[in-house]
Amino acid sequence: MRLALVTAMACSLAAPPAFAQVATPGAAPAAAAPVVEDFKPSSLNQPGQSFPQVNSQGYVRFRVLAPEAKSVRVSLGLGGRGGTVLNKGTDSAWTATSEGPLDEGFHYYHLTVDGGTFNDPGTLNFYGSTRWESGIEIPARDADFYAVKDVPHGRVEQVLFASPSTGSHRRAFVYTPPGYDATGGTRYPVLYLQHGWGEDETAWSNQGHANLIMDNLIAARKARPFIIVMTYGMTNDVRPGSPGGLASFDITPFRTVLVDELIPYVDRHFRTLADQRHRGMAGLSMGGFETKLIAPKNLDTFGYIGLLSGGTMSPQDVAEVPGYKDKVRLTFVSYGGRELENGQTRGSPARPSTDPAANAAALKRAGLNSVFYVSPGTGHEFQSWRRSLREMAPLLFRD
Amino acid sequence: MRLALVTAMACSLAAPPAFAQVATPGAAPAAAAPVVEDFKPSSLNQPGQSFPQVNSQGYVRFRVLAPEAKSVRVSLGLGGRGGTVLNKGTDSAWTATSEGPLDEGFHYYHLTVDGGTFNDPGTLNFYGSTRWESGIEIPARDADFYAVKDVPHGRVEQVLFASPSTGSHRRAFVYTPPGYDATGGTRYPVLYLQHGWGEDETAWSNQGHANLIMDNLIAARKARPFIIVMTYGMTNDVRPGSPGGLASFDITPFRTVLVDELIPYVDRHFRTLADQRHRGMAGLSMGGFETKLIAPKNLDTFGYIGLLSGGTMSPQDVAEVPGYKDKVRLTFVSYGGRELENGQTRGSPARPSTDPAANAAALKRAGLNSVFYVSPGTGHEFQSWRRSLREMAPLLFRD
Repeated sequence: MRLALVTAMACSLAAPPAFAQVATPGAAPAAAAPVVEDFKPSSLNQPGQSFPQVNSQGYVRFRVLAPEAKSVRVSLGLGGRGGTVLNKGTDSAWTATSEGPLDEGFHYYHLTVDGGTFNDPGTLNFYGSTRWESGIEIPARDADFYAVKDVPHGRVEQVLFASPSTGSHRRAFVYTPPGYDATGGTRYPVLYLQHGWGEDETAWSNQGHANLIMDNLIAARKARPFIIVMTYGMTNDVRPGSPGGLASFDITPFRTVLVDELIPYVDRHFRTLADQRHRGMAGLSMGGFETKLIAPKNLDTFGYIGLLSGGTMSPQDVAEVPGYKDKVRLTFVSYGGRELENGQTRGSPARPSTDPAANAAALKRAGLNSVFYVSPGTGHEFQSWRRSLREMAPLLFRD
Repeated sequence: MRLALVTAMACSLAAPPAFAQVATPGAAPAAAAPVVEDFKPSSLNQPGQSFPQVNSQGYVRFRVLAPEAKSVRVSLGLGGRGGTVLNKGTDSAWTATSEGPLDEGFHYYHLTVDGGTFNDPGTLNFYGSTRWESGIEIPARDADFYAVKDVPHGRVEQVLFASPSTGSHRRAFVYTPPGYDATGGTRYPVLYLQHGWGEDETAWSNQGHANLIMDNLIAARKARPFIIVMTYGMTNDVRPGSPGGLASFDITPFRTVLVDELIPYVDRHFRTLADQRHRGMAGLSMGGFETKLIAPKNLDTFGYIGLLSGGTMSPQDVAEVPGYKDKVRLTFVSYGGRELENGQTRGSPARPSTDPAANAAALKRAGLNSVFYVSPGTGHEFQSWRRSLREMAPLLFRD
């Protein structure tokens, strides 16, 4: 289903690639704890592949076959120290265990083999950093909320919609909730949900498990069933070898695709409640940045706004938008706890110049429905955004 | 959307991995023709990647960065000679041009870097040979039939269906034709379409462009709109490190999933014409083998049978199935031309012990609706199967 429409751009407005950090468990000093030998294959390994493995503490053990290689490194590990260096054993395999446990959740990574960048043949690939990267999953204590359970499951549908403004047919994925296929004529609200820089329209399903999160919330009656639409967030035409830079970043082309082309397509082809109070926009990282650029200027289109590790909405921002207080039914802002702790994301949309917690509190005091959420112990990575969706979804379309 | 249900097995009943062959163009002697320097990035490259490239003759030029490597090879090239050896240039890049032009269409491949198996970081990945492989597309002269055109597009929907027999929720992709989303109550026939050995339920959409082939056939009024259901064809539970062998191959588990679990799910959740004369089963390579094992024994379920590079239906086969002649409305058998020419697939399901062309002719003489198709100049690869679907689809559900 790959089409020419999946392009990429370099953009310094964007967040840096989401490298994992070494977690320091709150209770016990990790450095002193011995590595427990209960390693199991990562849940994201390719079929039949034994490595990489993860243990109950969150350590990762890598094993890569490259008998004649001079050096093999993994980009995961201690940030800033160049990742994990693998050592060659007597069996031609390169192995290493991460220096410390990794944060819970999903991490992108890749190998450096003799100076070249390759993926780990043991794992599945996920689109991030404008390339298909290797992925690994550190089982989270709260993984149950995105587990595949014996509950009714919605669908994830690939649609191709005409985009006259870009002269193409573009791809979107549409989550329809359980029950959508029933013969009844029930209509549903719609959330437009954007990925981050270097990712694409596959991210929220593949890395984020947005469909499973919704299935489980709906089964538990914690969220109203609604449709989620995910499309590629950048319309910049990036030809091979000439990625666009900041100079070419312009929200207008994407706004046109989203508001003038995709939304009418969705309202025509799906059973939607096609009005402002049943339509929201949210995004992670650069997707939050895009949400902030688009939604407040289109308040007759969107009634709900979510910024996940992707900026803040300050009282000043709100004051500049006529009607914001009356029209916006929810302003949801979230971050990973590590993003706020250590300044690693300084300079990215995830680290705005004003304090997002203080802004959210000020909006609340001013009478807006403002919700602020911090994902405990996670960084600028998908575990923060899975949890943010879990927190945000129950607050949407509650009228 | 990756779930534990995507597993793999080794099975010597199956076809070998589909390596490309060097084509010898019919008109001009390729060996003498100089390589034309009009190389362009492959349409399957990752965003922004310039290599690999393909020229107008079908030659491929590879370029891989691995400054410290001792050797880099590509598995594509002259079959049996170990692929294409890359040479290190002064710029730290390893490059080579294939010795000859490759067949039109899609080819799987991978790199061997210092003895290790890796994917080409330049290209997208496709599941084949029980691993995510690199893919390259040699533009075919008839590529128009699977091009993304300005026609109404159907959807490809991921569903998760309960499978009590395997204790899991399993994944299927469902193509619904343009117009399916209309408010009308139109019901549609269903084709169950299976992948080959080492592939999975993503293959027919990603490598095969089944959705685009159908969109274009329907727009041209050459095929009746119908639903296509694609699921993972092997239920064998293959744990990491212990792939199942031939001994564990048993059609019963898959028959149970398909006939007792998936078909009822589809008939319950989609607007289907839920009877034998509006339901077909077809598959490529091992999927054809499965079709032949399942469909003739379930003729109250399936009225159409398609074997694409996946076996033959002989008069003897038909004679052994009570009611075959009355109940089966189409027996479609196809091969790639190269599979019949040079015996490369001997011993696989694609090279049956009796002559498929003669069998098809005999069935026709006996009054059955038997159609035999040979894809010109292609082997045991997806270009044969794309064309086979194009030929078969117009013949389905014509009552």
